[in-house]
Amino acid sequence: MYKLLACCSMASGISLQPKMVQASLGVQKQGNGHCTNVPRNVNLEKLQNNYLFPEISKRELQHLDKYPSAKVISLGIGDTTEPIPEKISLSMANYAHALSTAEGYRGYGAEQGNQVLRKAIAETFYKNVLIRDQEVFVSDGSQCDISRLQLLLGSKVTIAVQDPSFPAYIDSSVIIGQAGDFQDKTGKYQNIVYMQCGPENNFFPDLTTTPRTDIIFFCSPNNPTGHAATRKQLQQLVEFARDNGSIIIFDSAYAAYITDDSPKSIFEIPGAKEVAIEISSFSKFAGFTGVRLGWTVVPEELLFSSGFPVINDFNRIVCTCFNGASNIAQAGGLACLSSEGFQRNRTTECLLENSQAICSVIDYYKENTKILVNTFASLGLKAYGGVNAPYVWVHFPGLKSWNVFAEILEKTHIITVPGSGFGPGGAEYIRVSAFGQRERIMEASWRLEKLISNEKALFNSVENKE
Amino acid sequence: MYKLLACCSMASGISLQPKMVQASLGVQKQGNGHCTNVPRNVNLEKLQNNYLFPEISKRELQHLDKYPSAKVISLGIGDTTEPIPEKISLSMANYAHALSTAEGYRGYGAEQGNQVLRKAIAETFYKNVLIRDQEVFVSDGSQCDISRLQLLLGSKVTIAVQDPSFPAYIDSSVIIGQAGDFQDKTGKYQNIVYMQCGPENNFFPDLTTTPRTDIIFFCSPNNPTGHAATRKQLQQLVEFARDNGSIIIFDSAYAAYITDDSPKSIFEIPGAKEVAIEISSFSKFAGFTGVRLGWTVVPEELLFSSGFPVINDFNRIVCTCFNGASNIAQAGGLACLSSEGFQRNRTTECLLENSQAICSVIDYYKENTKILVNTFASLGLKAYGGVNAPYVWVHFPGLKSWNVFAEILEKTHIITVPGSGFGPGGAEYIRVSAFGQRERIMEASWRLEKLISNEKALFNSVENKE
Repeated sequence: MYKLLACCSMASGISLQPKMVQASLGVQKQGNGHCTNVPRNVNLEKLQNNYLFPEISKRELQHLDKYPSAKVISLGIGDTTEPIPEKISLSMANYAHALSTAEGYRGYGAEQGNQVLRKAIAETFYKNVLIRDQEVFVSDGSQCDISRLQLLLGSKVTIAVQDPSFPAYIDSSVIIGQAGDFQDKTGKYQNIVYMQCGPENNFFPDLTTTPRTDIIFFCSPNNPTGHAATRKQLQQLVEFARDNGSIIIFDSAYAAYITDDSPKSIFEIPGAKEVAIEISSFSKFAGFTGVRLGWTVVPEELLFSSGFPVINDFNRIVCTCFNGASNIAQAGGLACLSSEGFQRNRTTECLLENSQAICSVIDYYKENTKILVNTFASLGLKAYGGVNAPYVWVHFPGLKSWNVFAEILEKTHIITVPGSGFGPGGAEYIRVSAFGQRERIMEASWRLEKLISNEKALFNSVENKE
Repeated sequence: MYKLLACCSMASGISLQPKMVQASLGVQKQGNGHCTNVPRNVNLEKLQNNYLFPEISKRELQHLDKYPSAKVISLGIGDTTEPIPEKISLSMANYAHALSTAEGYRGYGAEQGNQVLRKAIAETFYKNVLIRDQEVFVSDGSQCDISRLQLLLGSKVTIAVQDPSFPAYIDSSVIIGQAGDFQDKTGKYQNIVYMQCGPENNFFPDLTTTPRTDIIFFCSPNNPTGHAATRKQLQQLVEFARDNGSIIIFDSAYAAYITDDSPKSIFEIPGAKEVAIEISSFSKFAGFTGVRLGWTVVPEELLFSSGFPVINDFNRIVCTCFNGASNIAQAGGLACLSSEGFQRNRTTECLLENSQAICSVIDYYKENTKILVNTFASLGLKAYGGVNAPYVWVHFPGLKSWNVFAEILEKTHIITVPGSGFGPGGAEYIRVSAFGQRERIMEASWRLEKLISNEKALFNSVENKE
């Protein structure tokens, strides 16, 4: 009945896939499979590693297998831990319950998001920079919109990223086919411009030597370095984009953590609306990492080289490839931004002046951050970030980050994130997340102090390769 | 400060974009924009129309502008209207409320979905066909996973679709770059194989004349025709895919509406696990169109031509381009499938034997369907579908579907969907959705009877072009 296919040599035993993926999926062997004649997407073949955070989760599970009674503390993935303020959770609960009534039931909403929520986002975050309601597209999180923006842009554009940077920019670029081949020697993809950002340049690239690209991904406050670009830096960035006819994709997911007067939106910079898209999220200020809600702003002024408005194509992508964020999550988003919720106030430390509940959660994480910064400083390590972001970026000069990650995990049962997961620029760093319950942050601080101070030579003994 | 760019001739007045998009976004002119030097994605330039359903919404708004007091009845977009059973809505409400407590708070979940929900989906829908928990990926809806599957497959594969078919298959194919140029003469994209499905072939393509493609999108029960492929038809399809080394992407979003013994999953067909992916959804049986929850099954046995497991790449796409469905929606999905929820039972008319609440909502829509089928039959029109799906596919021989759509809207204030929105094979049809409150379905039926019987010559007078 079934014709024999010219079948693959790989089908019975020899594995092409990385072992990590195999393990995480529980795929032990491929002998029982059936080779279709469909070629694997060459872009996916070019991806070098598993996506960073699932890989770290896997390492954590392996550690727990080895030390079943270990009290692991995760300062790894930037995952919120504090409960959502009850006013907000109740608004979602009431919305969900009402779905069982004729009056409260709602089916499909607009793909672009609830109109009232779009308006509330525009008014709360962009009132002074005149973003229009219809330029705000509600999403299920900024990571998802990064891929939708890549679908919008296609494989022919060139991109630049900060190095280090959140891995989804590069990985989505590889998947859509922009990146070219990975070069083992440099740890970089051939067609991607890596803009080095480190303490040597105040975490801002030297734009005089940066080649032009169509697209510039820029995250501020930065994940992983925790650095918020200054107004002057962002002015330079916008000028650079305008001079080159580039589009900035600005990721402001951590804007609520800004303490100083760094801009919280790229649109605070004059001229930015004609060269920038902004992606953002409710995840990190409202604790919505699991609820899933974010937004993207595409100004009407932003045009492709032909004059065609970018917003029209983004609208088409959203309507075709997405069906709107969960209406329950959107009800929660609206509660966050209601008149009793919060309003932007750039003159106070807390972005969200009217909602003490939201502010106090942010303040809680910021206090955690201080504890961690002080811990590393007291140990004589250079720790960056932490002021305007919930991340601390710790330098281990001369060491390899996966080794530092492994050593810390082995000796203290603390999960961090190896900096090289964010690009070659992170090779000597680890990222430490300040999301966590206070007692666990204190315990982590204590364990780190004990490890590093009692074993001063430790990190020199880490095998210096990865 | 800003250098003058070699700017586009289109920037001040002449518009490249379809007027429809302009109107729906409120973009009136482009004169204030700034041309970047970023080229528009050529794939998006190839898209012919707006996405179908937003276009229909726009037509409805225009109609209401013209007839502000009209009582419009929508039998257009397949949007659920009946409340969610309270047990399910309460489970979401309780989950949402608990997010404000230390015990109930949850941050990021697994990108692939809650493990308990994956298991429940496998056990409820695939118990007899041995789908493993880890082969189930929870999504925010099948439309979203269609695009993620296209990201997985890339631009180099060839695809076939039923004609007519749900437009997201073709549109996502165009966006990713598989489709080639649109040909005005045929109304088809050059590189897509259109498998004609109509009453002349019992809505199943002649596979002896169908060219091989890498991918075959197949929707059963079909949207828009309402036809559920028989077991024999699906056996032929699986054999065809195996012979050709193709992958079937099987869309079973309407499986809960199957009344006869048509398969509810492609995996009921022996050999399918080695050639098929299945996408499905909670939307249409649990009223989750706005809540957003679906799933995709990728069997471990399914391999690319190199032997590399498709599931590994899909896992990577899900981890990189998606961050999991809303945890509140997932709690609702779990309630649908709980032991007090429902279990698959293929021997009864209703898929969901243990949940009277879910079953009675499905039965309600099915009763609506009968009313509409009878209405069209009594008027001497051929109406297909309706038995195994909430859609009725009505033939207007010799007429153009957008004209029929417009005439029905103008004369009866009823929204339908023009068949040509689903491909050239739908040119003489309209799709009528049976989702709706009973009294509105009755009222629609009455209006249609009045229109068609009292003005027998009406549809011959419709200008026969679009």
